[in-house]
Amino acid sequence: MQGLHLTADLSGCDPARPVMGDAAALRERCLAAVRAAGLAPVGEVFHRFEPGGVTGVVLLAESHVAVHTWPELGAVTLDVYVCNFGADNSARARALLAALEQAFAPAGAQRHEIVRGTQA
Amino acid sequence: MQGLHLTADLSGCDPARPVMGDAAALRERCLAAVRAAGLAPVGEVFHRFEPGGVTGVVLLAESHVAVHTWPELGAVTLDVYVCNFGADNSARARALLAALEQAFAPAGAQRHEIVRGTQA
Repeated sequence: MQGLHLTADLSGCDPARPVMGDAAALRERCLAAVRAAGLAPVGEVFHRFEPGGVTGVVLLAESHVAVHTWPELGAVTLDVYVCNFGADNSARARALLAALEQAFAPAGAQRHEIVRGTQA
Repeated sequence: MQGLHLTADLSGCDPARPVMGDAAALRERCLAAVRAAGLAPVGEVFHRFEPGGVTGVVLLAESHVAVHTWPELGAVTLDVYVCNFGADNSARARALLAALEQAFAPAGAQRHEIVRGTQA
C-alpha cells in the first residue's frame, strides 16, 4: 500500500498550553485539524499520564495521526500517515502536520518523511 | 524525545487470516504481542471498514503501535514507535514488530527505521 508518513519531533513547546496536558483539549484540536485538512476520522483514543503528558491517536479512513506530549520536557512528537488508496492524500497530510505543529508553537522541530509501500 | 520508530509494509498476506479482517482478533493479537514484548498498553481503538480491512492502534506508555490491513490487496502496514524515556526500549520494539509480522505471514516486507528526536 503506497502512502506517505510524516513525523515531526518538536522541542521548546510551552507546557502551559492546554494541548500539552489536557487530553480533551488535545483531542478537540486534533479532530478539528483532521477535518480542516479534508481527512476522515473513524475513531480515536487519548490517554493522560500522571503527573503530566498526553498520548493520543485519531484513526483515519486514510490511516492515522498520533501525538505524544511531554510537558516536563517541552517536547511533542507528531505522526501523520496517509495511504494513497483511491486518491493522493499527500497534500492533506502536509497541511495537517503544519496545523498540528502550529498548535504547539515549538521553538524547534526535527522532521522525517517516509514514502511507504509500493503503488497498489 | 529520543526514540525508535519501526515501520513494515507487508505484501502477500493471506486475506483469510482472522487478523486481516476481524477487529477483535487483531486487537487480541496486538495486545498479546505488546505484553509479550514487555511494553505497557494504556489504551486502544480498532475500527473495521466495510467491506473489509481493519485499522487499529494500541497506545503504549512507551508511545504506540499501529496496524492497517487491506485484505483485498493482501497488504498490511505496521508501525511500532517507542520512546526511550527512562529505558532503552529498542529491543522490545524490534521483538514486537517481529511478532506482529509473524501474525500475518507475509510473502514480502518493506521496512524503514527512524531514530527520532534527540537525547533528552
